[in-house]
Amino acid sequence: MKLTEMNKAELESFRNECVKEYEAFKAQGLKLDMSRGKPGADQLDITMPMLDVLNSSTDMTCEDGTDSRNYGGLTGIPEAKKLFADMLGVSTDEIIVGGNASLALMYDTIARAMTHGVLGSEKPWCKLDKVKFLCPAPGYDRHFGICENFGIEMITIPMLSTGPDMDMVEKLVSEDDSVKGIWCVPMYSNPDGITYSDETVKRFANLSPAAKDFRIFWDNAYCVHHLCDDHDTLLNIFDEAKKTGKEDMIFEFASTSKISFPGAGVAVMAASKANLDQIVKLLGMQYISYDKINQLRHVRYFKNLDGIMAKMEEHKKILAPKFAMVLDMLDKELGELGILEWHKPTGGYFVSVNTLSNCAKKVVQYCKEGGVVLTGAGATYPYKNDPADRNIRIAPTYPCVADLEKAMQLFCISVKLASVEKLLAE
Amino acid sequence: MKLTEMNKAELESFRNECVKEYEAFKAQGLKLDMSRGKPGADQLDITMPMLDVLNSSTDMTCEDGTDSRNYGGLTGIPEAKKLFADMLGVSTDEIIVGGNASLALMYDTIARAMTHGVLGSEKPWCKLDKVKFLCPAPGYDRHFGICENFGIEMITIPMLSTGPDMDMVEKLVSEDDSVKGIWCVPMYSNPDGITYSDETVKRFANLSPAAKDFRIFWDNAYCVHHLCDDHDTLLNIFDEAKKTGKEDMIFEFASTSKISFPGAGVAVMAASKANLDQIVKLLGMQYISYDKINQLRHVRYFKNLDGIMAKMEEHKKILAPKFAMVLDMLDKELGELGILEWHKPTGGYFVSVNTLSNCAKKVVQYCKEGGVVLTGAGATYPYKNDPADRNIRIAPTYPCVADLEKAMQLFCISVKLASVEKLLAE
Repeated sequence: MKLTEMNKAELESFRNECVKEYEAFKAQGLKLDMSRGKPGADQLDITMPMLDVLNSSTDMTCEDGTDSRNYGGLTGIPEAKKLFADMLGVSTDEIIVGGNASLALMYDTIARAMTHGVLGSEKPWCKLDKVKFLCPAPGYDRHFGICENFGIEMITIPMLSTGPDMDMVEKLVSEDDSVKGIWCVPMYSNPDGITYSDETVKRFANLSPAAKDFRIFWDNAYCVHHLCDDHDTLLNIFDEAKKTGKEDMIFEFASTSKISFPGAGVAVMAASKANLDQIVKLLGMQYISYDKINQLRHVRYFKNLDGIMAKMEEHKKILAPKFAMVLDMLDKELGELGILEWHKPTGGYFVSVNTLSNCAKKVVQYCKEGGVVLTGAGATYPYKNDPADRNIRIAPTYPCVADLEKAMQLFCISVKLASVEKLLAE
Repeated sequence: MKLTEMNKAELESFRNECVKEYEAFKAQGLKLDMSRGKPGADQLDITMPMLDVLNSSTDMTCEDGTDSRNYGGLTGIPEAKKLFADMLGVSTDEIIVGGNASLALMYDTIARAMTHGVLGSEKPWCKLDKVKFLCPAPGYDRHFGICENFGIEMITIPMLSTGPDMDMVEKLVSEDDSVKGIWCVPMYSNPDGITYSDETVKRFANLSPAAKDFRIFWDNAYCVHHLCDDHDTLLNIFDEAKKTGKEDMIFEFASTSKISFPGAGVAVMAASKANLDQIVKLLGMQYISYDKINQLRHVRYFKNLDGIMAKMEEHKKILAPKFAMVLDMLDKELGELGILEWHKPTGGYFVSVNTLSNCAKKVVQYCKEGGVVLTGAGATYPYKNDPADRNIRIAPTYPCVADLEKAMQLFCISVKLASVEKLLAE
């Protein structure tokens, strides 16, 4: 029976049951952190053999003859460019293999735009009265953090089941030349797990921005991070954009943070050759090279894209049961109550749920008091402000299945409790 | 006999000899790059065992229980902080252990100052009409490149045998509040190899800047890079500054680029806790963490400061003969001619020479035509402009001794040739 269809007496009885269950749960003294999309230790274990591929007797020479141990090679070693160009479906002169963090590549790209502009900018963005970014939401809190950090005004774009609301994106981008960018996680979006439809990607590739220096920040963080055999596919935005010569509009990012090791992986940026020429000139002021030994370690271990895909199968075996448990629990505990909506992702790192309005903060608070830390409610919106207070990001990857089950039980009770209280107060 | 004391006939005869020698040299078809301060392959070989210390069966847990393989730990792992705090003589809460490049730490520090200011800034530096940096010269071209990149006006400060001309530094810093910083390589300065005297360090630590947000960029790149047993010592600037509460004025940088591997080492930044608090808040927008696995690799390999110093002894054994050869050759070939001045460094990576005025570019050109690429003449000055065209940076570390000997022979002939031509033209 739906909670919204209960009468007052039924709601009160429901609430009393919830309170009893919740208090019993609190007494267990749980202590779990589900706030970030971190891989579990078991996922890190499967890549430990990577640490064996380079040792003191290894020939450290790259394919082009350069010594990976010495200075130089700003844009990455050739074999790493090949590997990650294959992963993203771009050519080797359209990629920079960077350091350990795609977040840093994205931050640095915006920082350079602020102080120098991008290719085609009339002036550095920091010299403009106003810079605006479109922010599909719910979205990735660290994207929004970068904007806030640089005083970039954020405009929330609703996420639909096909990706961002493209009518709104097209309108804003074409009308307002202070709109300089948009953040996208096009595959298994953070947090919804939505993959942009072919039509959405085509509409992105064909945007006609008022700003000549508008950029799509295509954070393809989960490009190979499938959870099912029957997984989503994403159209290659560069292929689409090249059809109409609009490829300069795109900056793509990815990393091996959730393929090899978070914080000790390799991050990449893809862009048109014209964009890269402008970027590399400025990048040469900041870096002589990124860590080429770690690049070599990754290539010698994975060998090729097949090697990466095989590793992702191993991750899938660990992660799929966790996601299945979360989704089953939501179905079982909340499926008939009509108080929570969610998308069932086939890849990525999150499950995103929407509560009744004005309940998300309360649910997160109840979970916290019960011993489970979730991502803060609102974090998935610009300025941490979810106007309807509905969205919560669940990150099932880090805890073991047993812990995750307990955490999800607590979560479901918390949703019930917050919802029934809301309905009783109306 | 000094070249300046020769009559015209003697000079002409001298020139004819030089031309003959130079042409014979060119015929050898040399092809050597001495443009950058790169370690030689033999230096990289001695650190290869570092690649064995972490392998697939290693416990990757840090001293504080965190998993080095996962996200988090923005300011570095505790054991790395301890190791490098010991190296720089600061405490573990005064240090950030960063990524693979101190250049990036320095660039990022200036970039943040431009967009956000430093602790105590009234506004971001990019909002000021004018930002000036003092640049002791000859100095490190990449420091000057960062300033130029951000439109920071550079003021050349002459280098004396005790370090920068402190009378000039004190005057400019105290009179002009648009002077926001100064670049220093206080130990074995790049390129002169001069270590700042105790008095110079004390005067730095006691500067009274007009700008409340003035910073000393103390690039201690060669802090343990000795070439002789009887080596220079550098006063600890933080110890001095703390005596008068001026420690917020200092940003110190260093790295293992020339201890372990260039581009795959570990870089560090030291600053007061108050400075670090301001920095870490902004840094958290750019990084979740630096590469903690590589930090762990370095600590497990070196173990402690003694381990680093032992490694530097190994480097010294390789480098000392190269520097001795360069200095001997200069003495032997040019010592009596009065056409070249140089300082004999007891550490660092360079030998810096000053030609007769308006000869440096020509010497570099002659070397290039003879097959040896040197650092561009002028590169050691702001805006690549050495007003007297005298300074040339010699980087003896990369070639093997045999190649270096040939290169230095060519260099000496080139100096003679350029000098005699200049004297004949006067």
